[in-house]
Amino acid sequence: MFVIVVYDTLAERNPRVLRTCRRYLHWVQRSVFQGELSAAQHRTFISEIKQHIDPGYDSVLIYRTRTPHHIETQTLGQTLGNTDPVL
Amino acid sequence: MFVIVVYDTLAERNPRVLRTCRRYLHWVQRSVFQGELSAAQHRTFISEIKQHIDPGYDSVLIYRTRTPHHIETQTLGQTLGNTDPVL
Repeated sequence: MFVIVVYDTLAERNPRVLRTCRRYLHWVQRSVFQGELSAAQHRTFISEIKQHIDPGYDSVLIYRTRTPHHIETQTLGQTLGNTDPVL
Repeated sequence: MFVIVVYDTLAERNPRVLRTCRRYLHWVQRSVFQGELSAAQHRTFISEIKQHIDPGYDSVLIYRTRTPHHIETQTLGQTLGNTDPVL
């Protein structure tokens, strides 16, 4: 599956969330990661993220499609990371 | 089409980008908006955003699918805005 993750976490928890995202996905913009995950990777990713956030304060949005071909990406201004869904 | 917008703009330009996003989409998280746009709305949205950003500094990511049914959304922690793609 193709996954886009956008997180809004307290600054002190950002590094752990960032590290977890980096291990599974690639960075596309401040607080935004995307990439292909297997169902098993998706499960472990979710459970790791849950360990690092405070669900009473932080928010992590996860968008998921079956294939990156369902999504078109456009960047206005600076392209920060790699936004090509098909690498 | 269904659109997800994530922006990373200089703080002083945030209010204008935010206002433009609000006119076309609904807020789902800090710097994240989503919603359904017609092709015409999409064009005017893009051109308005372009007027408000500095393309040498800011970055606005726009993900687009034909239908919200192609996308599943999951939120970990706080649900800040309305993340239901089908309203």
